[in-house]
Amino acid sequence: MIKAYAAHEPGGELKPFEYDPGALGALDVEINVEYCGICHSDLSMLNNEWGITQYPFIPGHEVVGTIGAIGDSVTTVKVGQRVGLGWYARSCMNCEWCMSGDHNLCLTAEGTIVGRPGGFADKVRAHHKWVFPLPEQVNPEVVGPLFCGGITVFNPIVQFDIQPTDRVGVIGIGGLGHMALGFLRAWGCDVTAFSTSPDKEAEARQLGANHFINSRDPEALKAVENTFDLIISTINADLDWNIYIAALRPKGRLHLVGVTPSPLSVGIFPLILGQKSLSGSPTGSPVTITKMLDFAARHNVEPITETFPFEQVNEAMEKLRNGKPRYRLVLKH
Amino acid sequence: MIKAYAAHEPGGELKPFEYDPGALGALDVEINVEYCGICHSDLSMLNNEWGITQYPFIPGHEVVGTIGAIGDSVTTVKVGQRVGLGWYARSCMNCEWCMSGDHNLCLTAEGTIVGRPGGFADKVRAHHKWVFPLPEQVNPEVVGPLFCGGITVFNPIVQFDIQPTDRVGVIGIGGLGHMALGFLRAWGCDVTAFSTSPDKEAEARQLGANHFINSRDPEALKAVENTFDLIISTINADLDWNIYIAALRPKGRLHLVGVTPSPLSVGIFPLILGQKSLSGSPTGSPVTITKMLDFAARHNVEPITETFPFEQVNEAMEKLRNGKPRYRLVLKH
Repeated sequence: MIKAYAAHEPGGELKPFEYDPGALGALDVEINVEYCGICHSDLSMLNNEWGITQYPFIPGHEVVGTIGAIGDSVTTVKVGQRVGLGWYARSCMNCEWCMSGDHNLCLTAEGTIVGRPGGFADKVRAHHKWVFPLPEQVNPEVVGPLFCGGITVFNPIVQFDIQPTDRVGVIGIGGLGHMALGFLRAWGCDVTAFSTSPDKEAEARQLGANHFINSRDPEALKAVENTFDLIISTINADLDWNIYIAALRPKGRLHLVGVTPSPLSVGIFPLILGQKSLSGSPTGSPVTITKMLDFAARHNVEPITETFPFEQVNEAMEKLRNGKPRYRLVLKH
Repeated sequence: MIKAYAAHEPGGELKPFEYDPGALGALDVEINVEYCGICHSDLSMLNNEWGITQYPFIPGHEVVGTIGAIGDSVTTVKVGQRVGLGWYARSCMNCEWCMSGDHNLCLTAEGTIVGRPGGFADKVRAHHKWVFPLPEQVNPEVVGPLFCGGITVFNPIVQFDIQPTDRVGVIGIGGLGHMALGFLRAWGCDVTAFSTSPDKEAEARQLGANHFINSRDPEALKAVENTFDLIISTINADLDWNIYIAALRPKGRLHLVGVTPSPLSVGIFPLILGQKSLSGSPTGSPVTITKMLDFAARHNVEPITETFPFEQVNEAMEKLRNGKPRYRLVLKH
């Protein structure tokens, strides 16, 4: 039996919950969970905001732990090895996208917490190619958030061939944004933080921002028109996206990784005149995750976390609900 | 004096109009107009739909003619040479974009009919690098529309590295769309025409479509979900863009070159889950125009046009206003 924390209805309290995982699949591994980050999508799923949650619902998809068991056909990881697991726990491995290295775009990829029991538990299972050995240098207590929040902001840098000569903006300096600043500084870019919290300026600069813009200041936004090659929005709120499209240089891209409540509304002329793009992406492929881990270890890009014992999971969720984490919460056994 | 046709107020009739162009700039050329295509943007400008029209307004930016005079510093074209001129008549030649070969993205590029007198005239002027010698094989009477409508749909094929193995959709089989079908067939792609006019199917297939979809048939649209690498929309109307984003494969792009009346409204989840992009672009650079002319000549991609004498310019505009051209109108001296 696996001991977990589950909610039984939308927005419900997380309560101890046991389930029988059955036999371990031949290509799956079972992780003994040591740490699990809390992502805003755990909260969205808990609340069934996206209409896809199944209850009892066990959150948790930024797992760090050691391999406790491996399926009969698993040859790439060993029992006892420390690994991480993120948003996706499985993809078909056979379709064009999996076969092209874009497993995160597999049309049947399975989210770790979508119709599956997640990592707020003593054990969690996943396909062996979706778990990732940790580089030796990284601190296992803080690295969990790289597996969802981290790869989500690292992936567009790789996907869109961002160069160290590029100017990149990050909207929202929170769980995802603070990691984006670190990656982009290490990538050599000129980095601008957009935040509604002027009190985050000093920390944003320390994390990697060369410039800080109060995104409630229309003058400051006007002053950066035609500036950015890429702007990554990490926030889950509606903005006037036209302002950020205006801030792009010709051929620039506004890339959203945060799920906005409303459809995006953008004027056509700025897209046409500047050959600009609006896009999104989901986490990253296994190979990109491996690249990220190596890059983060070499450049010491590390999430800033606050740790709660698993027993205080509801207090931690409440802190996330109130928007107070600086910057990422991790549960620990 | 240059003899032209000008409107004196929004939507006004085009009337004979003369103006003194002054001395020819050192880097400019003067074209003796033989033919001039009529583009939907001539009509939008005539009506001041975009709020940038100056009156008296002389339309015309799909010019074919012979060089009548060259400025003192022009060395690349000769008097008597037959050339074409499109949407842009000038760019700064000094900025990062001009210096990168992306002159059509120059922030101070000048539209041929934006604050300048256009090609509905016996003569028109432009910077020598924005006029293009015609390949010998092309028919000067029909080639004018390539210089705005043609390059507008050819450019995204080049910009986004479309491969012959790609599946590409074209929304709207009109002035731009019919040229897109020809280019994409010659490019080797699998080409789908989306049209609200089922009676265009046979002709669309003749022009280059491998498939034809009635875009008013929800079942047919549903059946092509996850199909296209690129969809180019050529229309000037509002659609439910989410349907076409759903029709894209992962990493696909919905690219709009038609000016829609309303802002675009798109849901965030399909963009994120499929790493999809929404974008636009303006005509193309001089080098891309030259590539297009060569490609069109080698593959016999030719606009289908109907010719009016210049004296019937108002009748021709009326035909465009009623949406009846099949597919492109050209004025002839």
